[in-house]
Amino acid sequence: SSPGAKLKAPPVTRYNLNNVTITNTPVENRENVLVLTPMARFYQEHWDNLLQLTYPHELITLGFILPKNKEGNAAYAELDKQITKTQRYGPEKDRFKSIIILRQDFDPPLISQDEAERHKMQNQKPRRAAMAKARNSLLFTTLGPDTSWVLWLDADVIETPPSLIQDLAFHNKPLIAPNCFQKFYNSEKKKMDERPYDFNNWQDSPTAQKLGESLGADDILLEGYKDMPTYRTLMAYMYEDGGDVHYEIPLDGVGGTALLVKADVHRDGAMFPPFSFYHLIETEGFAKMARRLGWQATGLPNYKVYHYNE
Amino acid sequence: SSPGAKLKAPPVTRYNLNNVTITNTPVENRENVLVLTPMARFYQEHWDNLLQLTYPHELITLGFILPKNKEGNAAYAELDKQITKTQRYGPEKDRFKSIIILRQDFDPPLISQDEAERHKMQNQKPRRAAMAKARNSLLFTTLGPDTSWVLWLDADVIETPPSLIQDLAFHNKPLIAPNCFQKFYNSEKKKMDERPYDFNNWQDSPTAQKLGESLGADDILLEGYKDMPTYRTLMAYMYEDGGDVHYEIPLDGVGGTALLVKADVHRDGAMFPPFSFYHLIETEGFAKMARRLGWQATGLPNYKVYHYNE
Ligand SMILES: Nc1nc2c(ncn2[C@@H]2O[C@H](COP(=O)(O)OP(=O)(O)O)[C@@H](O)[C@H]2O)c(=O)[nH]1
Ligand SMILES: Nc1nc2c(ncn2[C@@H]2O[C@H](COP(=O)(O)OP(=O)(O)O)[C@@H](O)[C@H]2O)c(=O)[nH]1
Ligand SMILES: [Mn+2]
Ligand SMILES: [Mn+2]
Repeated sequence: SSPGAKLKAPPVTRYNLNNVTITNTPVENRENVLVLTPMARFYQEHWDNLLQLTYPHELITLGFILPKNKEGNAAYAELDKQITKTQRYGPEKDRFKSIIILRQDFDPPLISQDEAERHKMQNQKPRRAAMAKARNSLLFTTLGPDTSWVLWLDADVIETPPSLIQDLAFHNKPLIAPNCFQKFYNSEKKKMDERPYDFNNWQDSPTAQKLGESLGADDILLEGYKDMPTYRTLMAYMYEDGGDVHYEIPLDGVGGTALLVKADVHRDGAMFPPFSFYHLIETEGFAKMARRLGWQATGLPNYKVYHYNE
Repeated sequence: SSPGAKLKAPPVTRYNLNNVTITNTPVENRENVLVLTPMARFYQEHWDNLLQLTYPHELITLGFILPKNKEGNAAYAELDKQITKTQRYGPEKDRFKSIIILRQDFDPPLISQDEAERHKMQNQKPRRAAMAKARNSLLFTTLGPDTSWVLWLDADVIETPPSLIQDLAFHNKPLIAPNCFQKFYNSEKKKMDERPYDFNNWQDSPTAQKLGESLGADDILLEGYKDMPTYRTLMAYMYEDGGDVHYEIPLDGVGGTALLVKADVHRDGAMFPPFSFYHLIETEGFAKMARRLGWQATGLPNYKVYHYNE
């Protein structure tokens, strides 16, 4: 550097991971939450729902990853507009601690984002492998030394209780998933209705285990397909009207629509396998990997969040 | 906030992962390198060796993780002293971009750090699982969106060529390992001598494959133990005096003494399995996981770095 230039001491940061608490009273303990969202499409309702979360926004970092294609570009433009609105011009209490937006550096598989097309069985393995890599990229590049919790929240989750983070953290579980439903117009009943949406939150079955053993090492089991009956117990169907919202069940597979994870689970190495891991992939494989690391997943059948209906 | 307080727009950072290049001319392209070191003991020679690296220090971030025990505390104190010396009082060209020090938040297994004790076979699985978790904690909390390369460098690697990073990156491989040797006093020859040290860089063998099949799902294969002959081809023994330092071989297992990894390999999800993964664990399991993600490891048998001799 030029002589006389002021010598600047570069940053040295010391973190004692023990001092980063992860408790069931995270607000009181000022615990940082990282909300991670892979986003192929932008939904205004999703952003509005983020804004209404009552967890102190100054403790929330948002992380997004968007694909580098036409649809991703469109979503990026809309997201960016809302971010500027909130972070620069919005009331201070709305503003998040920080926001990180990543653009994916690999090609998403050439599959339409329409619900019918993306749910076709033969499209699942490449699609979910790509999703797993997107989630891993987002996770590996945004998780910091001071993160206590990671909330995975899909971009098309458009309605949650405002106290979502506090409610889930209250259970003090390494991984915990609410039940993801979808509101729709029931044309028979001629009124709005609800149906279960996320079938990746499940308890394993002997049938699925046996089916797994019959598969090749690289093959994966899929949930929610008639051609592959697994007889797993799906949390989606365990909702009871008027049931205790705090009722807990153990889970063997989890979905990614909404999922609160203690940062230490990820720090131990739990990621989203983009390959067959015990015949599971992506979020379902993540639950299995967490289990291998000694962390058990929990589900809340009666605690509902809502997925967009296309 | 108090009325009239100046509203500060919180940071929003946008990263296009495509713009973070990973090339064989990283200096020219100003690529950021993250040097990651799990450290149970501090060696002055290791620090001195870091200082003499010719890769521009303003592009290097150092990340350390130290156990929370007596030995770790002692190492921390010494490391901290050297960091202050360099970052605050040293010549500007010596200073690194930034330094992150983590203290491990889990108990290291109760095993002495002495070479003889830590290499005992029955101590390997818990020891290497703990090492894997330490590496994952370090990786997950320090990898940033602008990291191009990760250099894994053990704390007891005390001598490398100054151009280590450029030399390894020049090969433009997803994972590349030099050959780790150890200098020692040969009392027969009555002079200093060298012997191979890191036996985790290997090419697989049919014997090891068959041995793996005979093991329980949670059991691991270990390398370098007489009781468990694997007949793998060890890079440690492939060094040829006067041979081309750029001579490349494919590897199926890698060690962690020195290993340059493209950040995208980690971003895809490659981590250090703390559990049996294809009967492999830690760095060896990492090579296998990278392979499952489509990334092949490379070794440089004639490119030497040196491990401390206790
Ligand atoms: N970054 C990224 N996100 C994606 C991609 N495909 C889908 N997503 C997002 O990932 C989440 C889950 O995908 P989605 O298609 O809704 O899954 P489904 O509801 O289970 O059918 C949603 O938030 C999507 O917006 C992709 O290729 N890249
Ligand atoms: N953070 C952390 N680092 C460790 C621990 N045990 C060893 N290390 C470091 O991890 C690296 C590899 O361990 P080492 O015992 O040298 O392995 P070996 O040379 O293969 O026998 C070295 O840099 C050690 O200083 C531990 O419990 N925690
Ligand atoms: Mn969805
Ligand atoms: Mn060592």
